[in-house]
Amino acid sequence: MNTLQLDLGERSYPIHIGANLLAQPDLYKKHLKGSLTAVVTNETVAPLYADRVVKTLESLGQKVKLIVLPDGEVFKTWEVLQKIFDGLLECSADRKATLVALGGGVIGDMTGFAAACYMRGIRFIQVPTTLLSQVDSSVGGKTGINHPLGKNMVGAFYQPQAVIADLDTLKTLPPKELAAGLAEVIKHGAIADAEFLTWIENNQNALNACDPKAMEHAVRRSCEIKSQVVAQDEKEGGLRAILNFGHTFGHAIEAGMGYGQWLHGEAVGCGMVLAADLSVRVGLLSEADASRLKKITAALRLPTVPPKLGINRYMELMSVDKKAEGGEVRYILLDGFGRAKIQAVDDALVIQTLQAAGAG
Amino acid sequence: MNTLQLDLGERSYPIHIGANLLAQPDLYKKHLKGSLTAVVTNETVAPLYADRVVKTLESLGQKVKLIVLPDGEVFKTWEVLQKIFDGLLECSADRKATLVALGGGVIGDMTGFAAACYMRGIRFIQVPTTLLSQVDSSVGGKTGINHPLGKNMVGAFYQPQAVIADLDTLKTLPPKELAAGLAEVIKHGAIADAEFLTWIENNQNALNACDPKAMEHAVRRSCEIKSQVVAQDEKEGGLRAILNFGHTFGHAIEAGMGYGQWLHGEAVGCGMVLAADLSVRVGLLSEADASRLKKITAALRLPTVPPKLGINRYMELMSVDKKAEGGEVRYILLDGFGRAKIQAVDDALVIQTLQAAGAG
Repeated sequence: MNTLQLDLGERSYPIHIGANLLAQPDLYKKHLKGSLTAVVTNETVAPLYADRVVKTLESLGQKVKLIVLPDGEVFKTWEVLQKIFDGLLECSADRKATLVALGGGVIGDMTGFAAACYMRGIRFIQVPTTLLSQVDSSVGGKTGINHPLGKNMVGAFYQPQAVIADLDTLKTLPPKELAAGLAEVIKHGAIADAEFLTWIENNQNALNACDPKAMEHAVRRSCEIKSQVVAQDEKEGGLRAILNFGHTFGHAIEAGMGYGQWLHGEAVGCGMVLAADLSVRVGLLSEADASRLKKITAALRLPTVPPKLGINRYMELMSVDKKAEGGEVRYILLDGFGRAKIQAVDDALVIQTLQAAGAG
Repeated sequence: MNTLQLDLGERSYPIHIGANLLAQPDLYKKHLKGSLTAVVTNETVAPLYADRVVKTLESLGQKVKLIVLPDGEVFKTWEVLQKIFDGLLECSADRKATLVALGGGVIGDMTGFAAACYMRGIRFIQVPTTLLSQVDSSVGGKTGINHPLGKNMVGAFYQPQAVIADLDTLKTLPPKELAAGLAEVIKHGAIADAEFLTWIENNQNALNACDPKAMEHAVRRSCEIKSQVVAQDEKEGGLRAILNFGHTFGHAIEAGMGYGQWLHGEAVGCGMVLAADLSVRVGLLSEADASRLKKITAALRLPTVPPKLGINRYMELMSVDKKAEGGEVRYILLDGFGRAKIQAVDDALVIQTLQAAGAG
């Protein structure tokens, strides 16, 4: 087992990465306060892992409430979030209760937000079971739900007590979801570590095959990079926005297609290809590097061609993106591999990127 | 104008108290970041004050969005909160936008929570227009909404940039709401300042008549006391719970009657009388003092007799209260005037208090 530490002063927490962690009581024990734990999961994950986690918590003397939500990004809504509050209130959960988020990014985001809001804040533990959530969403404290007019528009910065990333859970992941997670792995290399990007390029077969050794390295290095960025800028005052590389285009694809049509990671994969193209047009990245990133993305079985939503629709969708500040959209660009830059870009160049990619 | 400071490190903020403050641009100016402000208010307050606040903000060059919610505790729900998010997204509000909460406690709590959650946190300014909100809810950063199974069960600790308490707004307050606010004024005297309680006793006519001088003192001293408590324990780890004196019984009354039937302050007024009686039974307070507190409460036109919900119903309602910890309800008691104490109490004594008051 590898254990990293996300350093945020009194909000610091460990990130455990390894095989067979779900059933290790010690990893949960020190993070519990009261005698009640609610395990929040979804209909897909529950039959696979809920029993193991519930039994482990019960072995620690916890009363455990299991809350099973429907599975999918379309359910990342207030109505479904409400089911977590209902479950907590039904068993008279107090401020000492702990939530365990057992599932992917949607479960982690919603459970974290429920923990942030229930009685103005209770503890929670992230137990991510998808690659996407292990390498990205479970780390860093971004929680929230979607609004019909925008993704993650309602939420909180709220840190977990711990992240327990059990690599064994990746074995049951459908190939599409594995690829979606690899998009964020590529992202970490692209924005912060050119060497790691090369490692990804050289290990694409192992990654596509979900080879345990390869996954361990991919998850660990991703968590290290993300932790370092978050530790410097917890609430996204500046630097942290580089983690949104590929996300401005990606969010537009997700929202434009309707949440749930494209997986988040698929949209980010395609979004990175567009952002790299834009970086070339701005004069920051070589065409060879943009083309290399596109090849890596395709090799990891991610889409590289955006859906034809129409240029105007893209521009409109991106204007509502969270990174739109004072009316101008700020893009995350690559200033060579391993170096990200945040800046406003002329609409004309963005339109060129979209047109060249066939998004019109 | 009096200006107090709530000292919370980097989250410190000023509390301005005085006449004719709504229309003073300087009080808002330094707390705005971007160019968009959304003023959130309700159908009762909007015709009285919205125009003045909107014009003042416009004079600072702000684009102002007015969001008018229905009036009342029954509307302190997610569905109504959603209207704030809708309003913000309709005008593409970004993270630099500021919310202004113009109204009473419900508006302040909901607007504060919306500010806490919108894009994971934007700025907000409290402009309380009721006595209750000026002396209590606008100060200290408790925000939230109700859940069908409990009051304020979903929320956040989230501090405003400033509190602007314009005493002129109290002139339009219905007598019932004035009395409801005075309940929290009495509370501050009872838990923290015996001398202030005596001042309240000696100035009951001026307070009932909403005399400007009397109101100024009542608001200022209340804000001072509350600020001092909150500065020591922002997130209610311990001490801050003394501000809930009268609230355990009060919340049970509110929930048992159905939110909106009793005003919050009325329920707290009656709840303090019950809590004082319980303090006598526990051996902390003299019967004479409990009787004196009951007289002051009645003199300020607050109810002192609880509704007949049945003893079991009361016990059940109080068990779900936020102050229930690990299964036992912790009561805020008076250890003489000016000194509050938090402790668990035998159910038998609580039942005696309820029976003696005719709550069965």
